Amino acid sequence: MNAVTPSDTVIGFVGTGVMGCSMAGHLLDAGYQLRVFNRTRAKAEPLLERGATWCESAAELAPPCHAIITIVGFPQDVEQVCLGDEGLIANGAAGAILIDMTTSRPDLAVRINEAAHAREMLTLDAPVSGGDVGAREARLSIMVGGDREAFDAARPLLDLMGANVVYQGVAGCGQHTKMCNQIAIAAGMMGVCEAMAYARQSGLDPETVLQSIGSGAAGSWSLSNLAPRMLAGNFDPGFYVKHFIKDMRIAIESAQAMGLDLPGLELAEKLYEKLAADGHEDDGTQALFRLYEGD
Amino acid sequence: MNAVTPSDTVIGFVGTGVMGCSMAGHLLDAGYQLRVFNRTRAKAEPLLERGATWCESAAELAPPCHAIITIVGFPQDVEQVCLGDEGLIANGAAGAILIDMTTSRPDLAVRINEAAHAREMLTLDAPVSGGDVGAREARLSIMVGGDREAFDAARPLLDLMGANVVYQGVAGCGQHTKMCNQIAIAAGMMGVCEAMAYARQSGLDPETVLQSIGSGAAGSWSLSNLAPRMLAGNFDPGFYVKHFIKDMRIAIESAQAMGLDLPGLELAEKLYEKLAADGHEDDGTQALFRLYEGD
Repeated sequence: MNAVTPSDTVIGFVGTGVMGCSMAGHLLDAGYQLRVFNRTRAKAEPLLERGATWCESAAELAPPCHAIITIVGFPQDVEQVCLGDEGLIANGAAGAILIDMTTSRPDLAVRINEAAHAREMLTLDAPVSGGDVGAREARLSIMVGGDREAFDAARPLLDLMGANVVYQGVAGCGQHTKMCNQIAIAAGMMGVCEAMAYARQSGLDPETVLQSIGSGAAGSWSLSNLAPRMLAGNFDPGFYVKHFIKDMRIAIESAQAMGLDLPGLELAEKLYEKLAADGHEDDGTQALFRLYEGD
Repeated sequence: MNAVTPSDTVIGFVGTGVMGCSMAGHLLDAGYQLRVFNRTRAKAEPLLERGATWCESAAELAPPCHAIITIVGFPQDVEQVCLGDEGLIANGAAGAILIDMTTSRPDLAVRINEAAHAREMLTLDAPVSGGDVGAREARLSIMVGGDREAFDAARPLLDLMGANVVYQGVAGCGQHTKMCNQIAIAAGMMGVCEAMAYARQSGLDPETVLQSIGSGAAGSWSLSNLAPRMLAGNFDPGFYVKHFIKDMRIAIESAQAMGLDLPGLELAEKLYEKLAADGHEDDGTQALFRLYEGD
């Protein structure tokens, strides 16, 4: 990624869903040349209207890019886009930086890093937290693992999308950090749901309970932001149940591979599995409250 | 509690441990007459030196008091101090207000309320959160159940000890609210411990991980305040493991009596039981991290 001004720099962007579209928009705003590929072309239209170039495949997108950002759905999507004869690494230029911002498997990030090195490319695994609002407002937390020199070179791009960009270590460390984030959320969400279910069942006014417990030792982002939605019966997705289950499974497998037992996470994952089996996988994560309401 | 100026008002205070001593001190500062009783007299000395009157028993303390505050260890201590021939209710004056600030059983608060009414006394169950620092700085959250007119009359006293004083409903509602607080903390603490254990096991620098995850959707009071202590191996008690176990048991029994299943709370309680069985019941609650470190 040797070009020094945005207008000389070609960025590839694979995955223009809700998150990706906002994030890519910030790169266009800053004057970068953008090449985009997405499974569903319609979702890329807002970017194409603003001057981005449409590509029919990862293989078509990759060759001229100085850096390529991917933010797709599942680890198997990351694998398909990055690896193999039709992937970004096989078709990218030497010296290019591949930045995967999907929440994905740490061990896959390591494999991609090794495959990229064999083709003289560098990689970052840089998953985010902050949701659709954070993406829109360029206020994401970006947790970065991978090649240090790639981090330094790509920092201007990451700073356009996030407000809290932290380098966490070698390839896989960005994904491991995101797993820490999801692990803390998983058991914490049980605590929030159970506190609110207890409040309601014991005849308290849960809103008044929040006045007492919201700002002290029980306080959390989930309690402040999601408990009111639970109580209002608003289970609209900020973050999908199905995606959270994916993340928790990655964390559990990864922990097991390290010989680490995480019973709180395992219990939370089981409860979310039940929620999904009940038909709520497209709800937001606060819908865990449904299980406690007998809903 | 008819007297209108502090110097005309006699307050009884039972339980002058770390919390009670700070709280009673604020009442002395405001000019109230204070009568104190504690199992261990030495712990009441700082208050006696400042003009409080020592009493040898609850029965001796009660008769002249307009209001009596109790903050003792366990529900059985509350029961012993309040009920029975030698207790505060049998020996207190008609019109007096009994305020139990111990974290105790909601159903016991109801029984005490009924016993007090039979003697023309009123009661509040008003457990606190905020720890020794909150007590010292008069910044406690005070969760109040009981007789509404007693709350209005005792409000000036409560405001001297707390910064967030909220009336939650009839007798037992203060204790139920405190249970909500402890329930949210219980599963949340598993999340914090598991996130930090995963961070360490995966080779990350946990302090750097906190930079990424501390202020977003995974953020919580426990993550900000207790995770750094865990990582430093500092398990000194802010809040004792043994007291937290007591609280969780009350919450579990109370939930079961309401037909409510709280699997996250039950798992957390089991883990804390194991921690106590390993000899760590006098550690602070952040010592749950020991289980994940194989400590």
